[in-house]
Parts: sequence; structure tokens; C-alpha cells
Amino acid sequence: MTRTIVASATREVVIGFDQPFCVIGERINPTGRKKLAAEMIEGNFDTVIKDALEQVAAGATMLDVNAGVTAVNPNETEPPLLVQTLEIVQNLVDVPLSIDSSVTAAIEAALKVAKGRPLINSVTGEEEKLEAILPLCKKYDVPVVAISNDETGISMDPDVRFAVAKKIVERAADYGIKPHDIVVDPLVMPIGALGSAGLQVFALLRRLREELKVNTTCGLSNISFGLPHRHGINAGFIPMVIGAGMTSAIMNPCRPQEMEAVRAANVLNGTDQNCGTWIMTYRDYKSAEGGPAAVSPASAASAGRRGGRAARAGAAARME
Amino acid sequence: MTRTIVASATREVVIGFDQPFCVIGERINPTGRKKLAAEMIEGNFDTVIKDALEQVAAGATMLDVNAGVTAVNPNETEPPLLVQTLEIVQNLVDVPLSIDSSVTAAIEAALKVAKGRPLINSVTGEEEKLEAILPLCKKYDVPVVAISNDETGISMDPDVRFAVAKKIVERAADYGIKPHDIVVDPLVMPIGALGSAGLQVFALLRRLREELKVNTTCGLSNISFGLPHRHGINAGFIPMVIGAGMTSAIMNPCRPQEMEAVRAANVLNGTDQNCGTWIMTYRDYKSAEGGPAAVSPASAASAGRRGGRAARAGAAARME
Repeated sequence: MTRTIVASATREVVIGFDQPFCVIGERINPTGRKKLAAEMIEGNFDTVIKDALEQVAAGATMLDVNAGVTAVNPNETEPPLLVQTLEIVQNLVDVPLSIDSSVTAAIEAALKVAKGRPLINSVTGEEEKLEAILPLCKKYDVPVVAISNDETGISMDPDVRFAVAKKIVERAADYGIKPHDIVVDPLVMPIGALGSAGLQVFALLRRLREELKVNTTCGLSNISFGLPHRHGINAGFIPMVIGAGMTSAIMNPCRPQEMEAVRAANVLNGTDQNCGTWIMTYRDYKSAEGGPAAVSPASAASAGRRGGRAARAGAAARME
Repeated sequence: MTRTIVASATREVVIGFDQPFCVIGERINPTGRKKLAAEMIEGNFDTVIKDALEQVAAGATMLDVNAGVTAVNPNETEPPLLVQTLEIVQNLVDVPLSIDSSVTAAIEAALKVAKGRPLINSVTGEEEKLEAILPLCKKYDVPVVAISNDETGISMDPDVRFAVAKKIVERAADYGIKPHDIVVDPLVMPIGALGSAGLQVFALLRRLREELKVNTTCGLSNISFGLPHRHGINAGFIPMVIGAGMTSAIMNPCRPQEMEAVRAANVLNGTDQNCGTWIMTYRDYKSAEGGPAAVSPASAASAGRRGGRAARAGAAARME
């Protein structure tokens, strides 16, 4: 069984097919968030702190930490800023962290101060990346997200993306890194632009699980880019990728609809023992739509009808 | 490609792996609805009419019609009542119907007056049922729901349930009925009582699709029996069963959360051409949770960040 172990100073989390889905909170990332970038440049971490606390309260399993505030001379400026951000977050919350940077020096600087066992985000199939990042994984004994693109870009052919993932796993093995320490991102295309994006990724996830036996992740909300009511598409996508074998995602845990989909899929995937998390979270739930309907005679009768079917099944099961 | 064709007087619907999920509206069923049963016994079809119109308006692909109001002498009373109910519904709405009865005489009476190509709901693996129902399928050239239990009850072993489904398909073949006219119900157990109920049904659905090449259905809300916030579990279950190959379900289309899950899964499964139904349904959607958040700076920035990822993927795709 594939087990990717990540840890904070005191808390270990296992990413795996038999584990609850690992929600990697995406919010601590100034890319495209001008206000946050400006704050971080000024040394103001109020939003970072708020985002860290809110995401953990909302149910994030891990937090991604990115400090890529500028394209100007990031090799000099990003390492100290990433270290500062990471230290603030790891002193504040007790979840494992994902060190997210395209600057190798920033990743290494963060690895030096990170407590526990962080995840590196990320390596790709590009030679330069492989040679920069894989030695760090080995040296610090940490897992890494492997994005399935290379020098030629992102292939629209899922077989090519699978081949890139396979190459990364093989190259990692050359460094003595096991497949269970590679978390593959098969790359999710926007379904509004490519109607087969869903079917592609479901097929890829099954192959990655069965053939490479690796854990997987993705930037979840990419799937709904450009469509109205993106939360609805995201919330439908989550159970489908979990059903296909995805074991983590980089996403916004502060969205109730998406987190509800994660919790439901954990129940259905058999990784929420005795439905404990579901029952604890929703035992007093009053649905906006179902409020009045839930007590209407029609609804009560309908619940009874379902009960009848379920009771039949239950009775038959007890007979066996 | 497996295609189960059902039809109303003027409208044909295909159930199939490459088709939008077929939502069979479950509401016209007095089982457990005392008020509806009392009305139907009195010859009052107001609720039947309301349920028919509401379900079609909510997006039902087909309607199930059940008139099982009483256990007293149903062989005499149910045939005329089912015929009356069916005629009212088929004169009111233009969707294909599912004739739902445990009384063979009622099914045949309804088949005689049904327009188009209805679905029979249902046959099981019980000898008596097979011998009663399969000749009707052949005689009237209609498809049938095959429930995977037999004289021994519902097995908790999914391999046994698969074997029962296989037996029904083989027995149907003896009557000259093709597999594409058998819609198998693999039977869904309540996940609250059986933690592996989800994994069981996903595995069964894949086998039914790959080995028997049949369409499939289930009583959808059974899965959430006994749990709080059942709509959340149902809405997570729908994308998972669709991803596993289920092509229809008997469910309540008047529940927005469940229907949203169906529409999202159709988009992601590649059966909502150009996301047309999704965009038409949700283009003006204002989420209860997302209302204020959607215009907050943080949210706008977050959309931009996702856009960046998506744009990268899009640019790479165009390069190929």
C-alpha cells in the first residue's frame, strides 16, 4: 500500500488510497493576489496568519506555503521571504506544510528550517528541475509533487503525461527515492476548453495508481475555469477524482461546498470510519434548500419510502 | 456501444455510457406516502399530476409510475389503478415512463396502454419473476430493470450480486432479449450500516459495464439512509457512480443539490456537449455561500490565480 508520510513538528499525516482525502490549502500564495503580495513585501503577515488559521479551521489537512511575490531577482529575495513565511505558519498551526516555489534556493532554505516532514511543491520532467530538486528530496528525506510536464510543455495526450510521470518516478529511483515519496500531478485542463478533460484525468489517475502505484494531487479548481458556478463543478469533480484514485488536492478549504464533497467522498470511499467525521460535521445541519421541505409531509413520506427500501436491504443482509 | 432506448409517444431517450445520466423521477409512488395512497384510492390524482409536472420541470429524464396503494388483493385492484395513473401521466408530460409494480398483471395492463417504449421496473433473479416478466419484455419489446437479488435475498457479497445479474442477462437471452434491454440494479446498501457499500457498488458497476456491457440504475438515496444531511451524501455519491459507469438512477429530481451533482458529473463525464446544459442552468447562479465572497478582493484574486494556472495549461495546449 502506497503511503506518503508528511509531518509537522508533532503531527504525522499519511497520504494514501486507504486514507481520508488530503486537502492541501492553497490560500497562502501571493500569485495573482496583489494585496497579499504587497503585504508580504512590506513584512506584513496578517493575511498569511488569517489564511493559515481559517484554512485549518475549515478542515485543511496540510497547508501550501508560497512566497513568490515578485519576478525581479527571486533567487535573492524569495529564499528569506519563504523562510519567514514558513516559520510564521509552522509556529502558528500544527499541520504539515507544502513548500511551494519555483526557486530551488528558496526550497532548500525552507527545507533547512522546516519542522517535521514537509512536501516539496514541485518538480517537473524538465532535466534542469529534476537535477535541482531530486537531490534535495534525497538529502532532506522529503516527498515531492511531480508535475507531468517537461521541456516540451504540457501535452494534450494523456499517454505522454503518463510517460513524463513515469520518467520522474524512474529518475527519482536513481537517487534512491521511492515511488511512495512521489505525489504525481497529472495536470487538469479546464473542462470548458477541453470536453474530454475529465475522462482524461480519470483514466490517468487509474493508471498512476495501478501501474506506478503513486499518490496523486492536482490544482483542483483548474477544472472549472471559465464556467459559471465553479463551486458546483468543483464539488462534482472531487468525488469523481477520489473515485478514480486521487489522494490529495491543492484547493481552497474555505469553500463549504467543496469541503462537503470531500467529506461525502471520504464516507463513500470507506475512509471516514463509521462516518464519524460526517456525522460530527453535519449532525445539526439545516440545509438552505431543505429547511422548510425537510419537515413537509411529502418529504417525511419520501424519507419513509427510502427507509422501506433500505430496511428491506438491511433485513436481507441480516438473514445471510 | 450499449444503448437502451426508451420513448414516450413522441420523444426517444437513449440510456448509455456516452449519454447524459438518465434521471428517473421517483415521486409518483404511494409506498410510504399515506396521503398519496389515500388520494389515489379515492381517485384523486392531484398529487400525481403535481409530482409529474414538478419532476419534469426539475429535469427528470423519465418518470417512474407506481400505484401500489395496498397489500389487500393487489392482483385485482392494482392493474386498473396503475393503468389510470399511467394514462394521466402520459397525457400530461412527454417523457418516457417506467412501469413500476410487483404485480405482473398490473405491469401487463400498463404495457397494453403505454405509448412509446416504457421501461419495466422490475424483474429479479427469482425464478417466478423471471418466468413472469421476461415474456412480457419480449412480447411488448421493452427494456427491463433487473434487480440483483434472488430467492435467497440480497447477498452482501458483490460477487453473488454480479452472478445474479449475469443469470438474468443469460435468461433474458434465452427469450431473445438483448443485454442492451436489461438495466441492472446492483443494489445499493446504506453506507451508514456498511462502510464498504460504496466501494462494493463502484466495483460492481465497472464489472457490469465491462463484462456484461449493460446499463445500470439504482435507488439512489438508499446510500445515505440513517445519516444526517442526506442530500450531501447523495450529491457526492452521484458523481462517483457516474464515474464508475452507472447510467441512470431512480431518484428525486426536485432536490437541487442532487440535480446539480448530476449536471456537474455530465459535464465532467463529457456528456454535456460544450457544457451547454450547465451554462444554461447556472449562468446567472448566485451561490448562497459565495454571494458576498464572490466579489471580495481575496476571492477575485483567487480566481485570477486559478486563471493563471489554467491559462498556462491552455497556452501549452495551443502550442502542440
